[in-house]
Amino acid sequence: MKPVRFALVGGGPGAFIGPVHRLAAELDRELSLVAGAFSSDASRSREAGERFGIASDRAYPTMEAMLKAEAMRPDGIEMVAIATPNHLHFAQARAALEAGLGVMSDKPATATLAEARALAEVIERTGGHYGLTFTYTGYPMIREARARIAAGEIGRVRKVMVEYLQGWLAQPVEAAGNKQAAWRVDPAKAGVGGCIGDIGVHAFNLAEFVVGDTIAAINADLAAVVADRQLDDDATVLLRFAGGARGLLAASQIATGERNNLRLRVYGEKGSIAWSHEACDRLVITGADSCDWTIWAGSADVGEHCRMASRLPAGHPEGYFEAFANLYRDFARSLRGETTGLLPGSAEGLRSMAFVETAVAGNGAGWKELLS
Amino acid sequence: MKPVRFALVGGGPGAFIGPVHRLAAELDRELSLVAGAFSSDASRSREAGERFGIASDRAYPTMEAMLKAEAMRPDGIEMVAIATPNHLHFAQARAALEAGLGVMSDKPATATLAEARALAEVIERTGGHYGLTFTYTGYPMIREARARIAAGEIGRVRKVMVEYLQGWLAQPVEAAGNKQAAWRVDPAKAGVGGCIGDIGVHAFNLAEFVVGDTIAAINADLAAVVADRQLDDDATVLLRFAGGARGLLAASQIATGERNNLRLRVYGEKGSIAWSHEACDRLVITGADSCDWTIWAGSADVGEHCRMASRLPAGHPEGYFEAFANLYRDFARSLRGETTGLLPGSAEGLRSMAFVETAVAGNGAGWKELLS
Amino acid sequence: MKPVRFALVGGGPGAFIGPVHRLAAELDRELSLVAGAFSSDASRSREAGERFGIASDRAYPTMEAMLKAEAMRPDGIEMVAIATPNHLHFAQARAALEAGLGVMSDKPATATLAEARALAEVIERTGGHYGLTFTYTGYPMIREARARIAAGEIGRVRKVMVEYLQGWLAQPVEAAGNKQAAWRVDPAKAGVGGCIGDIGVHAFNLAEFVVGDTIAAINADLAAVVADRQLDDDATVLLRFAGGARGLLAASQIATGERNNLRLRVYGEKGSIAWSHEACDRLVITGADSCDWTIWAGSADVGEHCRMASRLPAGHPEGYFEAFANLYRDFARSLRGETTGLLPGSAEGLRSMAFVETAVAGNGAGWKELLS
Amino acid sequence: MKPVRFALVGGGPGAFIGPVHRLAAELDRELSLVAGAFSSDASRSREAGERFGIASDRAYPTMEAMLKAEAMRPDGIEMVAIATPNHLHFAQARAALEAGLGVMSDKPATATLAEARALAEVIERTGGHYGLTFTYTGYPMIREARARIAAGEIGRVRKVMVEYLQGWLAQPVEAAGNKQAAWRVDPAKAGVGGCIGDIGVHAFNLAEFVVGDTIAAINADLAAVVADRQLDDDATVLLRFAGGARGLLAASQIATGERNNLRLRVYGEKGSIAWSHEACDRLVITGADSCDWTIWAGSADVGEHCRMASRLPAGHPEGYFEAFANLYRDFARSLRGETTGLLPGSAEGLRSMAFVETAVAGNGAGWKELLS
Repeated sequence: MKPVRFALVGGGPGAFIGPVHRLAAELDRELSLVAGAFSSDASRSREAGERFGIASDRAYPTMEAMLKAEAMRPDGIEMVAIATPNHLHFAQARAALEAGLGVMSDKPATATLAEARALAEVIERTGGHYGLTFTYTGYPMIREARARIAAGEIGRVRKVMVEYLQGWLAQPVEAAGNKQAAWRVDPAKAGVGGCIGDIGVHAFNLAEFVVGDTIAAINADLAAVVADRQLDDDATVLLRFAGGARGLLAASQIATGERNNLRLRVYGEKGSIAWSHEACDRLVITGADSCDWTIWAGSADVGEHCRMASRLPAGHPEGYFEAFANLYRDFARSLRGETTGLLPGSAEGLRSMAFVETAVAGNGAGWKELLS
Repeated sequence: MKPVRFALVGGGPGAFIGPVHRLAAELDRELSLVAGAFSSDASRSREAGERFGIASDRAYPTMEAMLKAEAMRPDGIEMVAIATPNHLHFAQARAALEAGLGVMSDKPATATLAEARALAEVIERTGGHYGLTFTYTGYPMIREARARIAAGEIGRVRKVMVEYLQGWLAQPVEAAGNKQAAWRVDPAKAGVGGCIGDIGVHAFNLAEFVVGDTIAAINADLAAVVADRQLDDDATVLLRFAGGARGLLAASQIATGERNNLRLRVYGEKGSIAWSHEACDRLVITGADSCDWTIWAGSADVGEHCRMASRLPAGHPEGYFEAFANLYRDFARSLRGETTGLLPGSAEGLRSMAFVETAVAGNGAGWKELLS
Repeated sequence: MKPVRFALVGGGPGAFIGPVHRLAAELDRELSLVAGAFSSDASRSREAGERFGIASDRAYPTMEAMLKAEAMRPDGIEMVAIATPNHLHFAQARAALEAGLGVMSDKPATATLAEARALAEVIERTGGHYGLTFTYTGYPMIREARARIAAGEIGRVRKVMVEYLQGWLAQPVEAAGNKQAAWRVDPAKAGVGGCIGDIGVHAFNLAEFVVGDTIAAINADLAAVVADRQLDDDATVLLRFAGGARGLLAASQIATGERNNLRLRVYGEKGSIAWSHEACDRLVITGADSCDWTIWAGSADVGEHCRMASRLPAGHPEGYFEAFANLYRDFARSLRGETTGLLPGSAEGLRSMAFVETAVAGNGAGWKELLS
Repeated sequence: MKPVRFALVGGGPGAFIGPVHRLAAELDRELSLVAGAFSSDASRSREAGERFGIASDRAYPTMEAMLKAEAMRPDGIEMVAIATPNHLHFAQARAALEAGLGVMSDKPATATLAEARALAEVIERTGGHYGLTFTYTGYPMIREARARIAAGEIGRVRKVMVEYLQGWLAQPVEAAGNKQAAWRVDPAKAGVGGCIGDIGVHAFNLAEFVVGDTIAAINADLAAVVADRQLDDDATVLLRFAGGARGLLAASQIATGERNNLRLRVYGEKGSIAWSHEACDRLVITGADSCDWTIWAGSADVGEHCRMASRLPAGHPEGYFEAFANLYRDFARSLRGETTGLLPGSAEGLRSMAFVETAVAGNGAGWKELLS
């Protein structure tokens, strides 16, 4: 089996998520990085390429140049991984899809809902493969939680609590040269959502993914807590699921002291399931009036999807890279016609952008049905 | 120093909170149970009295009988502890205050806001001593959190997350003979609030107590999840503090699998403080971009109010009874003219009932200023 | 039911464990402190008595005076609680027993094995009631662990790990005026064991209590780590149970940073049970190749002995005082002819002193059978 | 920078650790798997090679064949990774070293101390690069612990507690077809140590690595708990460090219910440091009479060696593969003349085999100086 040849868009010097895509994609030897448009500055793109061991003639300054040149090669790329700021996602995904390539895009899918709708149209029209790195859906125990809820283990879901708390934007670090912060607080690059678009969408997607239901209406409280910010850096949103469950989503980037604390709790008629990113290889399940069961990744207690998402026996911690790699493995397999049905794609991109725009437009105004 | 003589109202056979009041009040030998109106059934009242070691002539069938008889005795009661269902709190507290006795009342202060206003008037008019057992304010580490925030340790507060989750009403246990459940779901006995009045008020009070600010407006989502309930059994409420902080309060009695899970997190400009009832002798404090400090009750790291609220050195767990006892100790000392300024009373009773009524009246209707 | 009248020996100003005995004994109103020999200094004894609300004529300067005077009173004491340094335990217990009184003694039972043998003889001869406050056996979840192991839930026990770690003697605080430290490091007052006698005996007793088997041989490594100490302040001991299980006991008072960290793990053929004092209301049970079950005190999952040892429903933390109180309640009931069979007494005192002397005598010399 | 070309020895169908070596080695693109002697069965070796994407002519049936063939190629291997049962380690490492190749070997270094001595001689004579995958030394927080202790942060070390607990050999699974178990309990393949050689050496090495001192004497209690086992499956060992610290090592493979629970606690004069594999991205540090600091991998609180060993910011969990990869990265860099001084090698292999043989020979016989 030959690895899928892919190019990375973004991931130049100083980038965070680009190298994560590279490492995760290659973890299982099912994909191989062979080219990239790492930076719009040609020499920086070559520099990044060198660091990844990419020949200088395949480290392009622009995506256009890359698509053109790679199309000529017998060993040209088969897909692109998009790891750029939000405002570029749509155009880059569209260009790749129209060039007949597969696309794995970082989240959010696009900068606006209108773009997300247009992207869905492109995906449908081209029939291209498109995946979205809602990373947390790649965690084995998240897949286990989804499977158990789908199997009715906790009964009909009644209440969902999801929170994603970070503290790294608690101070105006964008003014102090933090590049990761700078584009995220800039509407021209981040889109209409700040925190809600950056991490709120992870929480939104995770809740829908695990519960197996769609969120129908929300009641949002978004704030730009740090002075002079144009986009929200803190968001609390009440949720109503189509099936009647109530919920609560808290996302913040000004929760001083928090690192990358994503946590999900789902309460059903018969039991509850809880997961925390800080103990990501475990799931705590509780029945009515009973003890807590801590289920471990890699153990004999988990189902098939969870088992397939682990590479080690219980007690050998796997983490963020391995979860990310599970999405790439799903993608590589979908290219070969296999599917787990678990990889987020066009529909999830559209729904998450509908969430962002509904929250921003309806902020402070009580309950709103989700745009679609 | 002679212990304060008190009577218990409520606490008959099968009661939960009455015996807690007895034990907590007597823990430090500063109060002594000498009489009671334990049950409106005379023989059951005597039976309960015997269990507590109370002479049968001081185990009364009614509060009226008790107040009258005790007033004649040279060793008559000096105060009453009220541990009855909500709808009785107001009349009982009023009767005791007007008889010149002190009152420690279980929460909520009353069944309605109108009663809470009337009670405040009685307290002011009689000049009587009145305390409210918002139990969690008695925990040493809660007092430590309050002191640290007041001292500016985490800077201006920006976000507050408080949750109080139970699962014992996830099924319609009131129909199966659970007496604790039966009165709580009955508007005639519980008042206008179900879960919001039973445990939501604890969460509300705790947030204000620790943050040291008042909640000015709320946006409530209350639901009666279990079929045929007239009162809410699940509540999620967005909060706005007078000082600008945003917040989130989740209270539920249908969170299947949860026991008595109260948790508070406060995020400020410079750091955060977190407390969980399930590890009640610790506080986790985190600065910006830094490690977590776990501070222990009874250790050299805590301030005066915390130290006074612990009876044992660090590592010797104290819990619910001791926290409850701290409120009684505060009360006993207030009778002697000493005060910690920490015991909840008339103002807290009034505010918490305003919270309940604002939430119930404004349920589903977006942001509402708190009634007063 | 009238409470048992008792006197406290020890517990003068500055004492730690004396007030714990008082509070625990009275928690359930089954015993009542009415007299004491709180200090050998008459005025300090009266001062302590006042603090406890004891009339000055029943606050005696010596135990002899107390026994004599109380014997004359129609309402005289029925038992004594001994909370003095170790070297006094034997003589005081003997005096009380020979005066026909019951005795609850702090641990260790005596200062030497010879005394423990003599004490056992006195107990047998007088037929008196004697209990030993091996506090940790009073914890509900410890009783649950014992019951589950006895019922065969984890199969035959193979390995036992018990550790009791404190750090408060990591520096020579005895030289800096710490009275609690001073007598513990003084062979004249503490007996032959330092750390091994002060907390090692708790760990030893706990292991035997929960496993339900006796320790037959040990291999001890005791050290006086802090300069100039005559007694051990750190002890590690390999264990061999009569039934073949192997074990490990680590006790230390120089484990810098530790507070009062007692932890027990028992591994059987079919599963394991773990308990930690820092989360004392839970037990973690794990089967072979399976998930962890966290069982909670006060829940529907626990057996009768555990349920009787809790006063609150699951999720309402109880701690050290309540565990201690369980021992006193057991004692009070044994006076009335009821018994749980759980209260440590003469046999446990003898065995724990055999452990201390075997460890001290055999220190560094490999495996030794336990003296008896 | 071109990746180092390596071959894997072992790692055929059904293997556990072979694929871990492959994944870890390639994680950072500093090494690349190009050949292998995956199995002594030629067709199984080719089958494994295919799975790794290795051309069939470089999937050899024997190491000899591989060394010979690869030596002829211009793009031949530069090093071998040894992931075979213990009894093969020595001969394979020697062969590779004498062929002028680098070696990364799984632990234990050899099956006996005599072999370890011989291997050290070969390494010295050939001047070859040799690394040993004592995996846990690759964890960022372990390197942080080592650095902090070396810097004197907790003062002189007094007590060390290390435990490595597994339960997967609690039943005679070797008789039920478990291949991983079968060779580990067979003296012909595992060497003189069972549990002590399989995981005890990890614990031994970790203690020396973090403390920065050598273990001078031990007092071992080894047992074959499961019937008919020839090698130990449970080991408890008292330790004495050269610098005077006392310690305790518990390793077990019959600790029913445990997964892969490695835990280290080090107590010094001024503070303590604790690490647990189950929360591998954190370190808990406690000063004398003070709070606990939880330090996170990837945070601003860690030093250079720790920072270099993390690939993600704090709160993004990394685990076993990444720790393993850090050893390979250290090795790749040592080939280029850079060194962190952290990669275990010849000396650590020799010391750990001395530990195994001393423990086995001195089992039950009290204190023994470590062989050398």
